[in-house]
Amino acid sequence: MNNLRRVMQLITSMSAYHLGKRIRSNRVHGFIIGTGITSIVSVSVANLASDPKRKLNCSNFMAQPITDVDHLLETENNIKTKMELFILKIQADFCRALEAEEYGGQKFKVDRWLRQEGGGGITCVLQDGEVFEKAGVNISVVTGMLPPGAVQQMRSRGKNLQEGSLPFFAAGVSAVIHPRNPMVPTIHFNYRYFEIENSKTESQWWFGGGTDLTPYYLDENDATHFHKTLKDACDEHDSNYYPRFKKWCDDYFRITHRKECRGIGGIFFDDIDTPTQEDAFKFVNSCANAVIPSYMPIVRKHKNDNYGDRERQWQLLRRGRYVEFNLIYDRGTKFGLYTPGARFESILMSLPLVARWEYMHNPVVNSKEQSLLDVLKNPKDWIKTE
Amino acid sequence: MNNLRRVMQLITSMSAYHLGKRIRSNRVHGFIIGTGITSIVSVSVANLASDPKRKLNCSNFMAQPITDVDHLLETENNIKTKMELFILKIQADFCRALEAEEYGGQKFKVDRWLRQEGGGGITCVLQDGEVFEKAGVNISVVTGMLPPGAVQQMRSRGKNLQEGSLPFFAAGVSAVIHPRNPMVPTIHFNYRYFEIENSKTESQWWFGGGTDLTPYYLDENDATHFHKTLKDACDEHDSNYYPRFKKWCDDYFRITHRKECRGIGGIFFDDIDTPTQEDAFKFVNSCANAVIPSYMPIVRKHKNDNYGDRERQWQLLRRGRYVEFNLIYDRGTKFGLYTPGARFESILMSLPLVARWEYMHNPVVNSKEQSLLDVLKNPKDWIKTE
Repeated sequence: MNNLRRVMQLITSMSAYHLGKRIRSNRVHGFIIGTGITSIVSVSVANLASDPKRKLNCSNFMAQPITDVDHLLETENNIKTKMELFILKIQADFCRALEAEEYGGQKFKVDRWLRQEGGGGITCVLQDGEVFEKAGVNISVVTGMLPPGAVQQMRSRGKNLQEGSLPFFAAGVSAVIHPRNPMVPTIHFNYRYFEIENSKTESQWWFGGGTDLTPYYLDENDATHFHKTLKDACDEHDSNYYPRFKKWCDDYFRITHRKECRGIGGIFFDDIDTPTQEDAFKFVNSCANAVIPSYMPIVRKHKNDNYGDRERQWQLLRRGRYVEFNLIYDRGTKFGLYTPGARFESILMSLPLVARWEYMHNPVVNSKEQSLLDVLKNPKDWIKTE
Repeated sequence: MNNLRRVMQLITSMSAYHLGKRIRSNRVHGFIIGTGITSIVSVSVANLASDPKRKLNCSNFMAQPITDVDHLLETENNIKTKMELFILKIQADFCRALEAEEYGGQKFKVDRWLRQEGGGGITCVLQDGEVFEKAGVNISVVTGMLPPGAVQQMRSRGKNLQEGSLPFFAAGVSAVIHPRNPMVPTIHFNYRYFEIENSKTESQWWFGGGTDLTPYYLDENDATHFHKTLKDACDEHDSNYYPRFKKWCDDYFRITHRKECRGIGGIFFDDIDTPTQEDAFKFVNSCANAVIPSYMPIVRKHKNDNYGDRERQWQLLRRGRYVEFNLIYDRGTKFGLYTPGARFESILMSLPLVARWEYMHNPVVNSKEQSLLDVLKNPKDWIKTE
């Protein structure tokens, strides 16, 4: 019950909210104007007439939850509610941690958006900061009908689902941080919960996610620290998780045509539905809570490192590779862009501010750039595991 | 016979070459070391002992043909030979025309490469020129076995092919030119011939291609000149071609998720196999020969235009869109990158040197940037056709 308690810490008695049910398609409709609409929503406070003792404090979130807060209160033990409150907290904590590293007081721009088909998201972007050139931290809580083709794909992946179109719920947090200093790596993470209503008695659910690091210059101590932090988070739950999910990460984030990995990996997993829903949720909690301790010390260590044009140009070339992976291979990006009504600005927020492509670029032999490439071509075990 | 004559002008008596047959897999094998090999091959001259009167002048090409020159001489009436010589000439003419616009004498870097599976190509890239920031002009002449899945796809497109794996031949020229000055548009063109051996008596063949323009700032006179030049080339052959292929181009080069076109279009077609092979080849000749007159006057008109950081930043943002189209939607890029043994450096040479992505960028209302976007969202008829 540890994690439930952590989530429920958010439910305090400081403020109260307008009554309503989980946002339904017909209510959302009125909020949508075209595809590009965004609205910066600060959390508003109203009296909760029905039960003056039970209130939800959203003041630390980047924006109001996607689901109506009274519905969240009514369903506090439901995994959907727990996941939504959890990703709201992860998003806010990470945004604050990043903002704290900026010198000029740069803040995230917050766009809360709703989707005609059901649900919505909160997109937070900090662009052109002194420390972070482009940082995006997204959450989305989405409901709708999964088309028969997508259901069929999931059946072929082993999901026990009936054929046809099925109602689904998806909630996740994802972030990509591109720092300005080439000595500070890019980080990406994504944690998500997916549920499909199969029939009245039985639904399919699973968790997926991962955290991975993309350095421009290799600092072996950083790499070890990063992997060790993720391994510790995994080991709390199952000592097989880290080695299995480390390999999955190396296999997934591959730029196949270049025969190299996008970065130095981390962990990546999907279809986690064991041993229990509560345990799986706790595991995802541990992973997401490990993001800040895995990454922020590396940012602080290197954000004032010296660098010149050579390092900047190499960083931009590697960012070109990042774009290649995301646009050609990443399943999330492809799935997102091909989904009708998708908010492409939130999906493509992962792309760097600037990227570069040189024909036939090869690093100088025995250079720092070549050392990185060697590791990208042959992923390394950063922690010896038995 | 006009075009055959034009092609055969290349066959003169100035020099002679080493004897050989069309490059076969077992001979090519020895040239390949890994995937990234490139070799700059200047055309060498040797005596043709067998027939001192018949010689092939390759001195104007960017490199030696892919197929052995004696085989080209022996098969001078074969469409494969005619196509190879034709694309060699188109490549060389276009590279020279571009080089002539540079002030500092910048020249194309020439990489002639061979492919273990059969055939090869010549990749010409001019990078960091004063006028052209990145210009790539490619030819490839490739043979091999088409896998059953690809054959099945072609059958579903209406091709009369037997099932299974079939031998194929493909020859084409393609180019993407990214100028430095934002007032000069990017141009892309591609002309190709494809042949599949169906059985001993019958083979399937077709031509495809197109030329399209991607301006950063709209000059309506340039747009009309560009389209008029392409229309004239089409009208020589069939007055239905231009309106049909203009629409095909607008439909193909769409960045679907942004609901906008990549540029202001041009012409695009595939599966051209009528009225005769000779006529279809002549049509493709006219189109490819229209590239220089359609584009070079626009380059000369604008290459010294004034511009500032605002125009440069907008150019980089639009180049980001170019990358999105090429990596997410372009069939040629996807087909290329998923082909085992593909030379990805030649495929990705189409990407700009630098590209930029800003979250939620929208041009100022009534700005020059907005005018371009209006046309990209609603493709215009640049020439009134009845």
